[in-house]
Amino acid sequence: MFAARIGPFITIERNAVLRTHDLGSLRAEHIGETVTLSGWVARRRDHGGVAFLDLRDASGVSQIVVREEDVFHSLRNEYVLQITGVVSRRPDGNDNPALDTGEIEVIADTVVVLNEAAPLPFQVDEHVEVGEEARLKHRYLDLRRPGMQRNLRLRSEANRVARNLLHEQGYTEIETPTLTRSTPEGARDFVVPARLAPGSWYALPQSPQLFKQLLQVGGFEKYYQIARCYRDEDFRADRQPEFTQLDIEASFVDQDDIIALGEKIVSALWKLIDVEIPLPIARMTYRDAMARYGSDKPDLRFGQELTEMTEFFKDTGFGVFKAPYVGAVVMPGGASQPRRQLDAWQEWAKQRGAKGLAYVLYKEDGELTGPVAKNLTDTERAGLADAVGAKPGDCIFFAAGEVSPSRALLGAARVEIGHRTGLINPADWAFVWIVDAPMFEPAAAAVASGDVAVGAGKWTAVHHAFTSPKPEFMDTFDTDPESALAFAYDIVCNGNEIGGGSIRIHRNDVQKRVFEVMGLSSDEAEEKFGFLLEGFKFGAPPHGGIAIGWDRAVSLLAGVDSIRDVIAFPKSGGGYDPLTQAPAPITAQQRKEAGVDFKPEDKPEAKPGAK
Amino acid sequence: MFAARIGPFITIERNAVLRTHDLGSLRAEHIGETVTLSGWVARRRDHGGVAFLDLRDASGVSQIVVREEDVFHSLRNEYVLQITGVVSRRPDGNDNPALDTGEIEVIADTVVVLNEAAPLPFQVDEHVEVGEEARLKHRYLDLRRPGMQRNLRLRSEANRVARNLLHEQGYTEIETPTLTRSTPEGARDFVVPARLAPGSWYALPQSPQLFKQLLQVGGFEKYYQIARCYRDEDFRADRQPEFTQLDIEASFVDQDDIIALGEKIVSALWKLIDVEIPLPIARMTYRDAMARYGSDKPDLRFGQELTEMTEFFKDTGFGVFKAPYVGAVVMPGGASQPRRQLDAWQEWAKQRGAKGLAYVLYKEDGELTGPVAKNLTDTERAGLADAVGAKPGDCIFFAAGEVSPSRALLGAARVEIGHRTGLINPADWAFVWIVDAPMFEPAAAAVASGDVAVGAGKWTAVHHAFTSPKPEFMDTFDTDPESALAFAYDIVCNGNEIGGGSIRIHRNDVQKRVFEVMGLSSDEAEEKFGFLLEGFKFGAPPHGGIAIGWDRAVSLLAGVDSIRDVIAFPKSGGGYDPLTQAPAPITAQQRKEAGVDFKPEDKPEAKPGAK
Repeated sequence: MFAARIGPFITIERNAVLRTHDLGSLRAEHIGETVTLSGWVARRRDHGGVAFLDLRDASGVSQIVVREEDVFHSLRNEYVLQITGVVSRRPDGNDNPALDTGEIEVIADTVVVLNEAAPLPFQVDEHVEVGEEARLKHRYLDLRRPGMQRNLRLRSEANRVARNLLHEQGYTEIETPTLTRSTPEGARDFVVPARLAPGSWYALPQSPQLFKQLLQVGGFEKYYQIARCYRDEDFRADRQPEFTQLDIEASFVDQDDIIALGEKIVSALWKLIDVEIPLPIARMTYRDAMARYGSDKPDLRFGQELTEMTEFFKDTGFGVFKAPYVGAVVMPGGASQPRRQLDAWQEWAKQRGAKGLAYVLYKEDGELTGPVAKNLTDTERAGLADAVGAKPGDCIFFAAGEVSPSRALLGAARVEIGHRTGLINPADWAFVWIVDAPMFEPAAAAVASGDVAVGAGKWTAVHHAFTSPKPEFMDTFDTDPESALAFAYDIVCNGNEIGGGSIRIHRNDVQKRVFEVMGLSSDEAEEKFGFLLEGFKFGAPPHGGIAIGWDRAVSLLAGVDSIRDVIAFPKSGGGYDPLTQAPAPITAQQRKEAGVDFKPEDKPEAKPGAK
Repeated sequence: MFAARIGPFITIERNAVLRTHDLGSLRAEHIGETVTLSGWVARRRDHGGVAFLDLRDASGVSQIVVREEDVFHSLRNEYVLQITGVVSRRPDGNDNPALDTGEIEVIADTVVVLNEAAPLPFQVDEHVEVGEEARLKHRYLDLRRPGMQRNLRLRSEANRVARNLLHEQGYTEIETPTLTRSTPEGARDFVVPARLAPGSWYALPQSPQLFKQLLQVGGFEKYYQIARCYRDEDFRADRQPEFTQLDIEASFVDQDDIIALGEKIVSALWKLIDVEIPLPIARMTYRDAMARYGSDKPDLRFGQELTEMTEFFKDTGFGVFKAPYVGAVVMPGGASQPRRQLDAWQEWAKQRGAKGLAYVLYKEDGELTGPVAKNLTDTERAGLADAVGAKPGDCIFFAAGEVSPSRALLGAARVEIGHRTGLINPADWAFVWIVDAPMFEPAAAAVASGDVAVGAGKWTAVHHAFTSPKPEFMDTFDTDPESALAFAYDIVCNGNEIGGGSIRIHRNDVQKRVFEVMGLSSDEAEEKFGFLLEGFKFGAPPHGGIAIGWDRAVSLLAGVDSIRDVIAFPKSGGGYDPLTQAPAPITAQQRKEAGVDFKPEDKPEAKPGAK
């Protein structure tokens, strides 16, 4: 099958290798061997006449003994060296059992400086004593630290474990385009001018959503991709303009199939850190989660559920509690908080947009104190502790007003309580599926929370416009949007939503009705999603999927607070990269070539976007 | 380690499943079982009273027997059905041994139409009878065809095999940013306006080059990524604005290390199609490849090397051959080409920008004919056939003029000859490494061939600006740029460059000298690449890498001519997507929000790009 080799090829000569062994691999068994090693100077100690270097590479550290003073004196931390020498046993009593290579040292014959290092902006070790901006500006130094090395290697392993599992389950990895058409999913698109079609722009995808659905129409049945996605948001805490998700879609599946697959994935991921997740993971309805935890991503590592007190206070004379909703959450031991701490809670509530956080202190002696207590009737005071499950010494926090914001406030207070009182054990893991979310929310609410409403209707999709109603709402979701439940599921870990998905609409007529609820005219729907509606005409199978927020999932695995610690080159606030200083101005020529300033009237014969 | 579960959770009920078996999995052993199947109607045959359906899913096809006429009549090709029925043995003589499921059929009890299909724009089978524009517009139908199913599943396997191999070799998969700073590498950047820093733009990366080098400075030593890259080119034949490469970089390596790794990868890939590549793969210098094949990506499935005839014709009286270079290539059996075919060769040469293609016909009777022959002396005529290795019946093509364009013309003629005369066996595989390419080429030549020269100098990098000179040119590459050879290597398969890489510069001073040769002032170098030069100050290790053009490599594996056949949703000419109609106009509000029209003088206090 191979063509005959033609003619004289050059002879392959092996150059001298840069290293024969990894630094972390040397053991007593290597004693006596001559080795060549390469790496960075991690530490240097001059013992007068004999100098010791800790030389570091990706595999670990070995101790190098340099006997030549003048060689040694020129070396500094983070110099890159190539050492040739003989592996020797450390002198008696000098073993370092904390180090895998602690039995040996390498007596250097030759020391070659492969590269020098200027004085460092910060030291490369496990102690981070500089701000994040400096870390990101010199990310190449920050990445040498053990924490970042561990985080990114763990991320690589997470990729591998997930891909292997999906392969075993028969999934095909397929890449979808990133220069594409706007696929509104609740955030702004980044746009890219198309030089060859002046006046036209590509959009960077917020997710592969439409393409993964079209792959189902295309008969691929089981698709996955670790996909780069883009959202032009206002970079709220810990968001990145580009992020990664493990993106999955399958045909002929129901909610249970996708949930079972999702559980296999998280189970495999957490095994990487030796955590066995008991399966199946519990499920909770959205309604329950909001009522009991004031959140659609409840942290179930602890209890302290909210108690609805609307009924309890229905005849109250206290004006604040004459409200559509009154709820409470208990802070164990909170009755002994000093006044300034109780004031700080008010400040905390105000920063969340509330007027304050009403409270009653249930003193150890059984007395109820605090500003609210004196407004309560004797009956209310007598029944309160039992109603909310408070014990002497606890503090009872209240919220009253509209249901949603009141619950949200109490839910946030609950999490704050969990952290402050040590109710949350950071070593715990609590997973839960949140199911049966509403299909629609008022568009105004979505916009208020910073999302972009798709369509001009009163309603917008809670999940996204392609999520199917649960079968029992198939006939009524457009006449009674408020009641309709979505065929959607989110997976929550320790109060973080790490993934979510849904069974999708696969019928042209249903998709059109959803667009109508969202106030998308049929012209607009055709303009924006015509290709999806068209695809649904030709035998689209029932399908559904899930996406796991990879940055967040890996940050939980790695035990770090910020997703920036599991991203090699993240942006800082405002989407700015302190390393490359991107974004940056472009030249006038780039601007001209990109066709940014093309006006259709300039060249009436060219119809933008049309071919 | 797990937090106590807080109840009550909802009960998990299993819905009816959409299928119990895959269609392609049914065998005689299933006979008698009641099964539920889902899939698309591939074919329907009405035998009067009994109707047969071929039902297809991703796993294959099974025959379904439908006895109810009225059910059957409503079904059309590509309808999506759910069938429940009993697996039965086909009646005697009706077995189909060509089909894995050919022994059985399923007698349908119930037929549920999961979705309908409108009349199809083209049939979904192995015959492609429509143009590519129609295929791309209805890509979801095109993807159902066996060829595209096979291609994309092969691509997924190629990803898997490469990743597994790199994992075994100790490589870490790391994602690099795609909203970043311009990294000029010979093509235009796509740019993205940064809404939060009006007047500033991100660039989409032409490759992860700078980041993978910074990961080496960051101590990751062995990096890889299957990376999306972007080049805003004029979409020459078979280019895509976004493409994928297997991107690899390692520290403390030399050329032989990376070449050995590259060989392991192609070897593993070709095993997917049962081809064993003999290793090591031969190496050829760039100089040899150009002299002998007129190309830096020679197709070595056949011989027919170019013969340099400059010396042979040094005293010729024929004006055309009084040139800096005269070369020849032989077309076996070409002497019998009719006149119109010889004219067509002239046309072919003119389309490539040449004046024509001189030829001599070496007739079976030993006579030399054609317009050139009569201009040659007797001595020239006597020695010609031997000099070029022609046999009676062959045609000898000539090019004369400047060395490069003449060789390029003959090299192209050689490939054309290979295809036309059947010298190329399409089942053959010929790999070769091309090494020792020149480090620089005249900037004018790069621009003429459609690339963007980085810097304003007379010279630009052949490979890219970060490629190291070979050690023997380290001192002289800037005083004698023309002679300097790059520490670079390209891998070529059947005349296609499928990958390339180099040992990089890791020293600040060397990198600055290269920028100087390219005419980048130190200010410009600082502005564009300051972060790389800065990184090189702090102990950058020697490093190098390779990138394999994944779309091309997979298209060769799949045996398809176009990379579009191994991309799920490719662009057609001009970067246009017939499916989504991207790119498309954006709204005035999107334009305003994106800050596209921001002028620095509008808001003098805002300094674009500065933070």
